[in-house]
Amino acid sequence: MKHLLGTKDLTKEEILTILDMAAPMKDIILREIKKVPTLRGKIIATLFYEPSTRTKNSFELAAKFMSADTVSISVATSAVQKGESLRDTVYTLEAMGVDAIVIRHSRNGAPHYLASFSKASIVNGGDGQNEHPSQALLDLFTIREHKGRIEGLKVLILGDIMHSRVAKSNIYALSKLGAEVIVSGPPTLIPEHVKEYAEVCYDVDAAIRKADVVNVLRLQLERQQAGLITSLQDYHATYGLTKERVAKGKDDLLILHPGPMNRGIEIDEEVAYSRQSVIQEQVSNGVAVRMAIYYLLLGGAQA
Amino acid sequence: MKHLLGTKDLTKEEILTILDMAAPMKDIILREIKKVPTLRGKIIATLFYEPSTRTKNSFELAAKFMSADTVSISVATSAVQKGESLRDTVYTLEAMGVDAIVIRHSRNGAPHYLASFSKASIVNGGDGQNEHPSQALLDLFTIREHKGRIEGLKVLILGDIMHSRVAKSNIYALSKLGAEVIVSGPPTLIPEHVKEYAEVCYDVDAAIRKADVVNVLRLQLERQQAGLITSLQDYHATYGLTKERVAKGKDDLLILHPGPMNRGIEIDEEVAYSRQSVIQEQVSNGVAVRMAIYYLLLGGAQA
Amino acid sequence: MKHLLGTKDLTKEEILTILDMAAPMKDIILREIKKVPTLRGKIIATLFYEPSTRTKNSFELAAKFMSADTVSISVATSAVQKGESLRDTVYTLEAMGVDAIVIRHSRNGAPHYLASFSKASIVNGGDGQNEHPSQALLDLFTIREHKGRIEGLKVLILGDIMHSRVAKSNIYALSKLGAEVIVSGPPTLIPEHVKEYAEVCYDVDAAIRKADVVNVLRLQLERQQAGLITSLQDYHATYGLTKERVAKGKDDLLILHPGPMNRGIEIDEEVAYSRQSVIQEQVSNGVAVRMAIYYLLLGGAQA
Repeated sequence: MKHLLGTKDLTKEEILTILDMAAPMKDIILREIKKVPTLRGKIIATLFYEPSTRTKNSFELAAKFMSADTVSISVATSAVQKGESLRDTVYTLEAMGVDAIVIRHSRNGAPHYLASFSKASIVNGGDGQNEHPSQALLDLFTIREHKGRIEGLKVLILGDIMHSRVAKSNIYALSKLGAEVIVSGPPTLIPEHVKEYAEVCYDVDAAIRKADVVNVLRLQLERQQAGLITSLQDYHATYGLTKERVAKGKDDLLILHPGPMNRGIEIDEEVAYSRQSVIQEQVSNGVAVRMAIYYLLLGGAQA
Repeated sequence: MKHLLGTKDLTKEEILTILDMAAPMKDIILREIKKVPTLRGKIIATLFYEPSTRTKNSFELAAKFMSADTVSISVATSAVQKGESLRDTVYTLEAMGVDAIVIRHSRNGAPHYLASFSKASIVNGGDGQNEHPSQALLDLFTIREHKGRIEGLKVLILGDIMHSRVAKSNIYALSKLGAEVIVSGPPTLIPEHVKEYAEVCYDVDAAIRKADVVNVLRLQLERQQAGLITSLQDYHATYGLTKERVAKGKDDLLILHPGPMNRGIEIDEEVAYSRQSVIQEQVSNGVAVRMAIYYLLLGGAQA
Repeated sequence: MKHLLGTKDLTKEEILTILDMAAPMKDIILREIKKVPTLRGKIIATLFYEPSTRTKNSFELAAKFMSADTVSISVATSAVQKGESLRDTVYTLEAMGVDAIVIRHSRNGAPHYLASFSKASIVNGGDGQNEHPSQALLDLFTIREHKGRIEGLKVLILGDIMHSRVAKSNIYALSKLGAEVIVSGPPTLIPEHVKEYAEVCYDVDAAIRKADVVNVLRLQLERQQAGLITSLQDYHATYGLTKERVAKGKDDLLILHPGPMNRGIEIDEEVAYSRQSVIQEQVSNGVAVRMAIYYLLLGGAQA
């Protein structure tokens, strides 16, 4: 593996390799001294063209736990302001000795474009409405940790499927590992072609009753302005993961959310902090999965 | 000690423990090689909801001198922008393996709220108009270093007492260690209840004549817009620490200021850089005191 | 050497010492493990009053490759916002244990002012329209690496000479090492006094024909608004380094550009990525030269 661009491009075996590698990585971050020398002398750059704390910090901490150095570039302060092209920015990072570049960009395919010429490893940290593979991999890791398997599970993805890169990366990865994917949410926000990969179930309550796992998507609040949903209250009433809806589901229904949450909109506070929720654990697993990704891309094995 | 929220909550013994621990820490930062492995593999996050360089850098350098890794979150670039709650931000940091969180927030009590549920240690880096304990501790360390003691000293705090978290943290800590605290400044900016802890002396010149130490507060320039002071010139004339005022005080009057200074307003340039001023030393001591705080909170002893 | 303020102040021997030292530094960044312990326990601050990614990252990575810790201060988030003077900012950094300060400032002479009182080493990272010495040193390093020498070479500097600190630092350094400097560009952007150091040749094509090396300056796009150039199209037609112009030059003409490039304006895309271009190499060499600067300033030799 040279780059990590999306789960669409990964084989089942590659996905399993990353998940297997993430387990020993998780042990490291639970230690008293969270530091191994594996990637000492490697440089990892985060190049974020969209604001983010959670994902960026997760990628940066993963690097630090492995003793890599990090360099962080955000649009606000970068030469991008001076009109530098994405290509030249990447050439520059490469020339400075950067070994891997984690990129988040509003344009679909930006990481794939970079991977077409970059000598440094490219990690997709979220591209437009296309993919967010590390998020899907941490979701799968979390599910497998709790359910013992992925194959045969019914995994419901709930919310704005159309605009969600988290949904897409999850759907591809879950399908490859043999899960049965169900999607639910506003009909206006579920694209037709998703039926290739998933069962569409517009009845949220019915979908929840069937599910072993529900992954609640964050509602992008700007969707309301675009007229795609009527109101936040309506959204909550019709599609929100409420205590009542959860009560009608399986007792061991596992609840995931990629964060940050709009509590009281797509998910209720008491659900988010309930026994069935593994939302905070997803965050820990995110660091572990990103450590595994770095390890596999940067050949930590030989170091 | 699990958290550092304010000097109000500290015992005399706890304050002395921190001050005693800061002395060997100061030796480290005066060395040619400013680095000890004490907190290797620990992660310290700075979470600043108000702009700051001085305090943030001081906390971050203190961490680096002890080989801890740091992660820095500022509001401008954080998920806070996406409406994430303070609680979820802290849960996220915790889940990522963060051991201590230094928080600065405009709301009084924000750190206390976080400490009520956080598994990570919370360090108050300044909360609203409430407390700024690490600043007070470094002020006391500096005073003790020069005067050999705190007990029995007359310490004047000069300026906007009402809105100053530095004033409050100093008053609590100084009182506990047996100093005699005097406050002076515009009557509109000295709250009644301060009389519980300190002598109020509206005559600045008389107050300076009595003092062994004067701690000049930074004037928040927005106070003028609020109509609490008439003009900066008036403020300087009536309450500024001028050369003339210092000349009438004790010859060994010790002059402190938390910085950044408004030179020519609350303090004159020649006073700020005079023989009696220890303002730059406070900055060094700030790093040492913060190292001591980390050491005590993060159990460096066992590492 | 205590500070690096400009190439104007450097002797020929000092320049050669830096270039010679940069060669082993370059070896380090080409290694699998890009890290040496030379500056462990040293602190290097970047204090940038103008936006920059390229130069700031280069200085920070150079520090990290040598195991120094870094602290980064940008105007947007700094106490400068609170009206702190440049002097007090530097006093504060010094007091916190900072060993070297890399400053970029819009005012000519800002680094020289700081050097007049700072105990920390001051490195000029670009001051107004005055100097950008590390850029010139990396340009010379790159030229020498390819041509085997500087002395006797004809080096053309093309573009807005008047406002360019890169041009000035290059002209001083090249002259001291015995190169023959030619400048070309819009007559309105070439100051009279440059004739002391360089041959002025308004005919760009003639200048290119003579040159062994051409260093193309970045066009500051705001110059057009100021009426100093007519249009970007005109600029490109008359002064841009096009494929056609390069074809009329020497076959081994070496092409440099300090970046970030305005492709299609001062330089054509195919020229920028051609066989004769060493633009990306300049970026790598920039890190190496900055490592050499730190080494010489911070006495790595004794550490």
